[in-house]
Amino acid sequence: MTVKTGPARVTRKDVARYAGVSTAVVSYVINAGPKKVAPATEAKVLDAIQVLGYRPNAAARALKLGSTEMLGLVIPDNTNPFFAELSHAIEDAANDRGYALLLTNSNGSTAKERKHVRNLLSRQVDGLLLTSVEDEPYLDDVVTTGIPAVLLNHYRPSKLLPTVGVDLTAGARAAVEHLIWHNYENIALVEGMNTANTPDEREAGWAQALAAARLREGQIFTAPFSMEGGYRAGRRLADARDRPRAVFVSSDAQAVGVLRALHEAGLQVPQDIALVSFDASFQSAFTWPALTAMHQPTGQMAEAAVSALLDRESAKARNMVFPTDLVIRRSCGCRPE
Amino acid sequence: MTVKTGPARVTRKDVARYAGVSTAVVSYVINAGPKKVAPATEAKVLDAIQVLGYRPNAAARALKLGSTEMLGLVIPDNTNPFFAELSHAIEDAANDRGYALLLTNSNGSTAKERKHVRNLLSRQVDGLLLTSVEDEPYLDDVVTTGIPAVLLNHYRPSKLLPTVGVDLTAGARAAVEHLIWHNYENIALVEGMNTANTPDEREAGWAQALAAARLREGQIFTAPFSMEGGYRAGRRLADARDRPRAVFVSSDAQAVGVLRALHEAGLQVPQDIALVSFDASFQSAFTWPALTAMHQPTGQMAEAAVSALLDRESAKARNMVFPTDLVIRRSCGCRPE
Repeated sequence: MTVKTGPARVTRKDVARYAGVSTAVVSYVINAGPKKVAPATEAKVLDAIQVLGYRPNAAARALKLGSTEMLGLVIPDNTNPFFAELSHAIEDAANDRGYALLLTNSNGSTAKERKHVRNLLSRQVDGLLLTSVEDEPYLDDVVTTGIPAVLLNHYRPSKLLPTVGVDLTAGARAAVEHLIWHNYENIALVEGMNTANTPDEREAGWAQALAAARLREGQIFTAPFSMEGGYRAGRRLADARDRPRAVFVSSDAQAVGVLRALHEAGLQVPQDIALVSFDASFQSAFTWPALTAMHQPTGQMAEAAVSALLDRESAKARNMVFPTDLVIRRSCGCRPE
Repeated sequence: MTVKTGPARVTRKDVARYAGVSTAVVSYVINAGPKKVAPATEAKVLDAIQVLGYRPNAAARALKLGSTEMLGLVIPDNTNPFFAELSHAIEDAANDRGYALLLTNSNGSTAKERKHVRNLLSRQVDGLLLTSVEDEPYLDDVVTTGIPAVLLNHYRPSKLLPTVGVDLTAGARAAVEHLIWHNYENIALVEGMNTANTPDEREAGWAQALAAARLREGQIFTAPFSMEGGYRAGRRLADARDRPRAVFVSSDAQAVGVLRALHEAGLQVPQDIALVSFDASFQSAFTWPALTAMHQPTGQMAEAAVSALLDRESAKARNMVFPTDLVIRRSCGCRPE
C-alpha cells in the first residue's frame, strides 16, 4: 500500500523530454491545472508517463513548495443540506485555486472537533475552515501553528480568527416580519441547540420583530439542527396548548422534520400553521409545501472564506457578515408562481 | 501562507524530552491517535509544543513513511442524500484507521471526474474511491500509478479494479414485487441517467418483477439522480395519459422531487399513486408521506471499500455486492406504526 521512493527515479524532466514539452506542461497535466493543456499535448504527456512509469512524488513536492496545497474543513454534519451545499461550494472554491479539500465531520461533538482540528493541523493544511459547535472554540492549537484559519458559519467577531457568516439576527427578524405581515399573531420559534448553551442569535431577531410589532413572544421549541430534531420539535408544536399560528424554524433540516410532524398530526401548512425557515438550501424547494426561507449565500461565503485563507490581499477583513435574502414560496401563505 | 522548514527546527524528540514522555506519545497527541493519551499527559505535551514552538512536518513524515495517510473520494454530488450519507460513512471508516479523506465532486461530468482522479493520484493518496459517472470508466491512469483503488457504488464486476456496490437488480425487483403484492398493476419506473447511456441495472429488476407477475411494463420516466430531476419526472408522471397506479423510483433524491410534483398536481400518495424508492437514506424517513424504500447499507459499503484499500487480508474480494433491505413506511400503501 505504500509508495516508496526507489532509486534512479524517473523525473518530471524525463517525462518532458520524452513528450517534447516543457516541465511546466507536464505539471499542468499531472496536477490537472492550473493552466489548460491542449488535448493532443495532454495525450503525449500521459503516454510518456505511462511508458516511462513516472510517478509524481507529492511529499517531495510539498517539502519543496512548503505547501501541501490542501485545505481542511471541519463541519458538524455533511448530511445536513445546508452544510452539504456549503462544503460543495468550498470544494469548488478550493479547486479553482488548485487546492484539494480534506473534509471532516464533528457530529456536533467538541471532542471530535478538537481531534479533527489537531489532525488537520498536523497534516499541515495550508488553511483551516472551522464550523465549530462552540461559540468561542478553543483555538490555541490553531494560533500556535501559524496556519491560516477561518471560523465559518460564525456570525460574531472572534478575538483570534477571521469569521465568515450571515447576519443571523437580521435574517431571523426579516423572516418573522414576513410572518407578521401575513397578520399571524402567535408566532413560535424552533431553535437550534449549541453545545455552548448560548442562545442562538436567531432568537434575538425573532424577539425583536415581535417586540417591534407589539406582539407577545410565542413558545420556543429547542431541538438539534437536524431533520430528526425538527421532527421532535414539530410534534411538540402540533400538541401545544394554545397552538401557534405560525413558526420560524432556524434551519431547513429542522423544517423538513417539522413539516413531517405537522402532516402526521393532520395539520395543514400554511392554513393551520404557517412556516418560514432559514438557509433556503437546495432542499427547501422540494418539500411540501415548498419552504419560504431566508437564503444564505453559500457560494459567496465559501469564496470569502477560501479567499481569506489563500489570497493575501483579502486577509484584512476580520468579520465577514453576509446578508440573507427572503425566498418566497408557499409555506408562509404566499402563493407565488 | 507557506510553511517553511526553518533552520534549527524543534523536533519531536525535543517535545518528548520537555514533556517527559516518549516520542510515541507525542505522536499520538499530534495525530490525535491511533492510541489514546490520558488528558493530563496530553496537556503536558500540548504545553511543550507551545513553549518550544514545535511544528510537525507532514511532508517529511510522508516521505519517511512512504504514505500520505490520506484517501481520495470522487462522488457525483455530495448534496444527494445517499452520497452525503455514504461519504460521511467513508470519512468515519478512514478516520478509524488514522486516514483523512480528500473529497471531490464530479457533478456528473466525465471531464471533471478524470481531472479529480488525476489530481488525487498526483497527491499520492494511499487509496482512491471512485463513484464514476461511467459504467467502465477510463482507468489506465489509476492502474499505472499502482495506487490501490476501488469502484464504489458499482454493481457489475470490473476487469481492472475491485468493486463495492449493492445488487441493484435484485433490490429493484424486490421493490416492485412489494408494489405487486399491494395489487397495483400499472407500475411505472423513474430511472436515473448515466453518462454512459447503458440502462441502469434497476430497470432489469423492475422488468423481471413485472414479467414474473405477468404484468405489462408501465412507462419509464428518465431523469437525473437529483431532487430537481425527480421533480421533472414527477410532473410528467402526473400528467401521463393512462396514469400509473404505482411507481418505483430509483433514488431517494428523485423520490423527494416526485413527491413534490405529485402533491402539486393534487395527487395523494399512496391513494392515487403508490411509491417505493431506492436508498432509504436518512432523508427517506422525513418526506411526506415517509418513503418505503430499499435500504443500501452505506456503513458496510464504506467499511468494505476502505478495508479493500488499506487492509491487506481483505484485498482478495474483487466484486463486493451487498443486498438491500425493504424498509416499509407509508408511501407504498402499508400503514406501519
